Amino acid sequence: MNTMNTKEQNEALPSKWSDGSRMVVSISMQFESGGQPENAESPFPQNMKKGYKDFPAETWYQYGYKEGIPRMLDNWDKLGIKVTSHMVGSAVLKNPELAKEIVDRGHEAAAHGMNWSNQYDLSYEQEKKFILDGVKAVQETTGFRPVGYNANWLRRGENTLRILQELGFTYHIDDLSRDEPFLLTINGKDFAVVPYTLRNNDILLIEGKGFSVDQFYDQVKADFDQLYIESELKRRLMSISFHDRIGGTAQMVKMAHDLVRYMQGHAGVTFKRKDDIAEMTLKDRSSIKD
Amino acid sequence: MNTMNTKEQNEALPSKWSDGSRMVVSISMQFESGGQPENAESPFPQNMKKGYKDFPAETWYQYGYKEGIPRMLDNWDKLGIKVTSHMVGSAVLKNPELAKEIVDRGHEAAAHGMNWSNQYDLSYEQEKKFILDGVKAVQETTGFRPVGYNANWLRRGENTLRILQELGFTYHIDDLSRDEPFLLTINGKDFAVVPYTLRNNDILLIEGKGFSVDQFYDQVKADFDQLYIESELKRRLMSISFHDRIGGTAQMVKMAHDLVRYMQGHAGVTFKRKDDIAEMTLKDRSSIKD
Amino acid sequence: MNTMNTKEQNEALPSKWSDGSRMVVSISMQFESGGQPENAESPFPQNMKKGYKDFPAETWYQYGYKEGIPRMLDNWDKLGIKVTSHMVGSAVLKNPELAKEIVDRGHEAAAHGMNWSNQYDLSYEQEKKFILDGVKAVQETTGFRPVGYNANWLRRGENTLRILQELGFTYHIDDLSRDEPFLLTINGKDFAVVPYTLRNNDILLIEGKGFSVDQFYDQVKADFDQLYIESELKRRLMSISFHDRIGGTAQMVKMAHDLVRYMQGHAGVTFKRKDDIAEMTLKDRSSIKD
Amino acid sequence: MNTMNTKEQNEALPSKWSDGSRMVVSISMQFESGGQPENAESPFPQNMKKGYKDFPAETWYQYGYKEGIPRMLDNWDKLGIKVTSHMVGSAVLKNPELAKEIVDRGHEAAAHGMNWSNQYDLSYEQEKKFILDGVKAVQETTGFRPVGYNANWLRRGENTLRILQELGFTYHIDDLSRDEPFLLTINGKDFAVVPYTLRNNDILLIEGKGFSVDQFYDQVKADFDQLYIESELKRRLMSISFHDRIGGTAQMVKMAHDLVRYMQGHAGVTFKRKDDIAEMTLKDRSSIKD
Repeated sequence: MNTMNTKEQNEALPSKWSDGSRMVVSISMQFESGGQPENAESPFPQNMKKGYKDFPAETWYQYGYKEGIPRMLDNWDKLGIKVTSHMVGSAVLKNPELAKEIVDRGHEAAAHGMNWSNQYDLSYEQEKKFILDGVKAVQETTGFRPVGYNANWLRRGENTLRILQELGFTYHIDDLSRDEPFLLTINGKDFAVVPYTLRNNDILLIEGKGFSVDQFYDQVKADFDQLYIESELKRRLMSISFHDRIGGTAQMVKMAHDLVRYMQGHAGVTFKRKDDIAEMTLKDRSSIKD
Repeated sequence: MNTMNTKEQNEALPSKWSDGSRMVVSISMQFESGGQPENAESPFPQNMKKGYKDFPAETWYQYGYKEGIPRMLDNWDKLGIKVTSHMVGSAVLKNPELAKEIVDRGHEAAAHGMNWSNQYDLSYEQEKKFILDGVKAVQETTGFRPVGYNANWLRRGENTLRILQELGFTYHIDDLSRDEPFLLTINGKDFAVVPYTLRNNDILLIEGKGFSVDQFYDQVKADFDQLYIESELKRRLMSISFHDRIGGTAQMVKMAHDLVRYMQGHAGVTFKRKDDIAEMTLKDRSSIKD
Repeated sequence: MNTMNTKEQNEALPSKWSDGSRMVVSISMQFESGGQPENAESPFPQNMKKGYKDFPAETWYQYGYKEGIPRMLDNWDKLGIKVTSHMVGSAVLKNPELAKEIVDRGHEAAAHGMNWSNQYDLSYEQEKKFILDGVKAVQETTGFRPVGYNANWLRRGENTLRILQELGFTYHIDDLSRDEPFLLTINGKDFAVVPYTLRNNDILLIEGKGFSVDQFYDQVKADFDQLYIESELKRRLMSISFHDRIGGTAQMVKMAHDLVRYMQGHAGVTFKRKDDIAEMTLKDRSSIKD
Repeated sequence: MNTMNTKEQNEALPSKWSDGSRMVVSISMQFESGGQPENAESPFPQNMKKGYKDFPAETWYQYGYKEGIPRMLDNWDKLGIKVTSHMVGSAVLKNPELAKEIVDRGHEAAAHGMNWSNQYDLSYEQEKKFILDGVKAVQETTGFRPVGYNANWLRRGENTLRILQELGFTYHIDDLSRDEPFLLTINGKDFAVVPYTLRNNDILLIEGKGFSVDQFYDQVKADFDQLYIESELKRRLMSISFHDRIGGTAQMVKMAHDLVRYMQGHAGVTFKRKDDIAEMTLKDRSSIKD
């Protein structure tokens, strides 16, 4: 007869993560608003005559830094977790104090390009400059040198990983292929992939699919439940993504709070920044190599 | 040991609203049907041959004034709340008695343009006339001089705020950037912004995203729950929007009733017209200035 | 102190329906499959090369008469209710025995045009023939002479009501403007309108908006709840619509069963065919005249 | 008084299936990822400039074989059921060991074309080669000779059934017309149809309609509930479909697990491979002939 409780049973399991976690959850908080191009896509109908400014759409984006990021920061503090913030360079320059506050409150600043635009069609030199300009904007503003990268709509080009390795990045997230981090060999050296998500992603589910917040909750909860079961035997990473003007609404933050609390009720679950996950993956000999 | 109940605790908090409210909810009731252009968008497929009238779509709009507004008016009475009705001039002229009844039953009549059409592409003079014609239609019909403005799809032009200030308006709502009212300086004087919503808006959620009524309820309830928490420390305004032919269906009114009752179960929550909110904001020295 | 139970209270209310019903629900069962044009719209992607037959889409329609209508007929029997079946002429000719069975089991056969095509763009003579051909197909097959009409996508033309009055119809349904039947004066005589619905309609909610069956249930239940409240003081009619290949799936019939049972649990609710509703409306001096 | 419990009652009923099942459920597991064309459709926006590779979309497909199929295989084992895997030839050649593992764990390998492309527009000879190449890829890799067929988007051509009969297939699934298997006469011999589903299909509901996992669950549960009731008197088959990169996500597998467990709680429900269903249908004199 087994007399151990759930927590004791978990502690008795061979951990699949080198730090003893049973399962790791990593939250992304995109810092993009303020850096969007003129008349960028929004929930408003895309039917304006040319040459006029879409004023209400601009205020929709402003919400991202006036309400969204501050509210999410308070939520992460309340929940006692740290996240990774993917920062567009031009957005950082628009609201430098807020960017700095993110880092000051213990979160990771990751790079997300200088501007809100494609990089897959740039030449090697153009792309290197594009990435580096974004890095400088983040570093000079926050004092934090990004080691992680996320391309616009995840769309890297043929040279991107090589450039990232050259610039001292340790990982990128533009990959959906696994529910655990893994290693690539780039320029002859290990480079970590900390997989991102579309299926637990507010921009896809809330804006794209038109989910209500309760659908988002149910969807992500089910993902957690399954990965938690699997984490008994396998290294499992769960990724969740929130964008400033979408994940930062009152209704989404309430939902995120309840979701994280639900997960925190499970033994062995830890919430980590992606730079820490990349470092663990690079140091761990048992990491998958693709 | 804290022996105060929730209500006493709330009363002990320093209120963020000058009238002592802990949190303010403001409901919009759009009065537009009857004023729509020929063959306006509707749930029917937009595939008719040119030159023919879309009869069933017209009856869809008629529902707005034959059933929708009367039903909502009864619901607000039952709930004991007052709302702001944004009235299109041509719709008011089509159903003047109903427009007057809205005001007679204690609600605010706000201006929403003379017609159901863009104003962002009008010249200064054209736009001023467009706004003023709408104001006159409302005032002559209801006896109420509007002080609040809402542009078609929130799309103001470069001159709109200046014109509104010149015409004696005290506020507009075409802004999504904050969950509290704030002040702008227009023509050297204060002008209030009472932010509107897309995320608690029937035209976007029900017609645009295809939500069912239970999704609308869950979505708006979550918004309220979070803003109520925040209202302990900050001034918080929640905006909800209903359009005559959408928010006035039986299923939506049942849902709205349950939603308002839920909110009314929380201490310190008040429901206010936007003209009253604008006035409080203009008089309050602690209002945010953008 | 009020010692009457709910049923007694209801019976004590002045009924708004001349037969003593507190509220009337009317279900439509569209009989259309088999009559659709070649390569008609279906859930399959509309991307086939020209000149090829969309075989799986055809089987999707076949489901309507092979499973859908028979299953719904069993469900109506089980629930003890009668419905109105709107029959496309060409669909009736394709499956005459099934059409006859609908009438033999006590349901109303209403006309729905000779073919699955527009009639709003026909000349007076063309349209009269189009309607009459459909009537003959139904009458010769089922023995029932239709007195009610429904145009393709509700899109009548300028002459339709005149033609219907000439042909001896007593009502049409192509109107969404009220939650109760009303009268028009056509050719100098009364003509009844028994309003239809988009908001409780499977083709719009399931195929158009992509609702799941539980959303359909919640949506229609909320509509019923509100109309039932209103029926204490007003004549209220609720319309629900099911199409053979959509409302006839197993999941939809299960949902419809639960929904009707829920409604039947309320005192004074009756389920009626639209010809009976039209007759009551025409005879009742208190009916609204538009 | 009836003293039999549910199980005894069921056993007392005349079974509609020759093996004594009260109702049969058949699950499809599409094995397609790795075989998709370059820049195939995915949840990413379809707006890339020509000539560039959609890297993140590729990783979305990779998830199908790296996580999806292995996770589903574990789930079927845990639940103790066998499924039918429809295998695209090119996908099998990309991941032969995984294809073989599917068969080794007791599941059926069915043919799904050599490539992920239309076959309805091929000539008789081209189509025969297309089908046969796919069969060979499956047979040489897994050791299993497919007897069942599924065309791309179910779109067979005029010659497809004749070719399948010639090549020794016993059934196809590209038909939605019934909730039970039936027989066709092809080339003068019986050929079975084991109907497929769109309404319980992840590619249509999750990717197409944007359902959340809880909607999928409710939708399919309702279908089961109704078919189970009907199975008392009729032969009933329920089809459910999962695609590697969609049905194989953590959230979908959790949902599928709960769904199958719910069904398994009903007396007389069996889960069968489609080849077994086809064989029963071909041998059973009471099968419907269309």
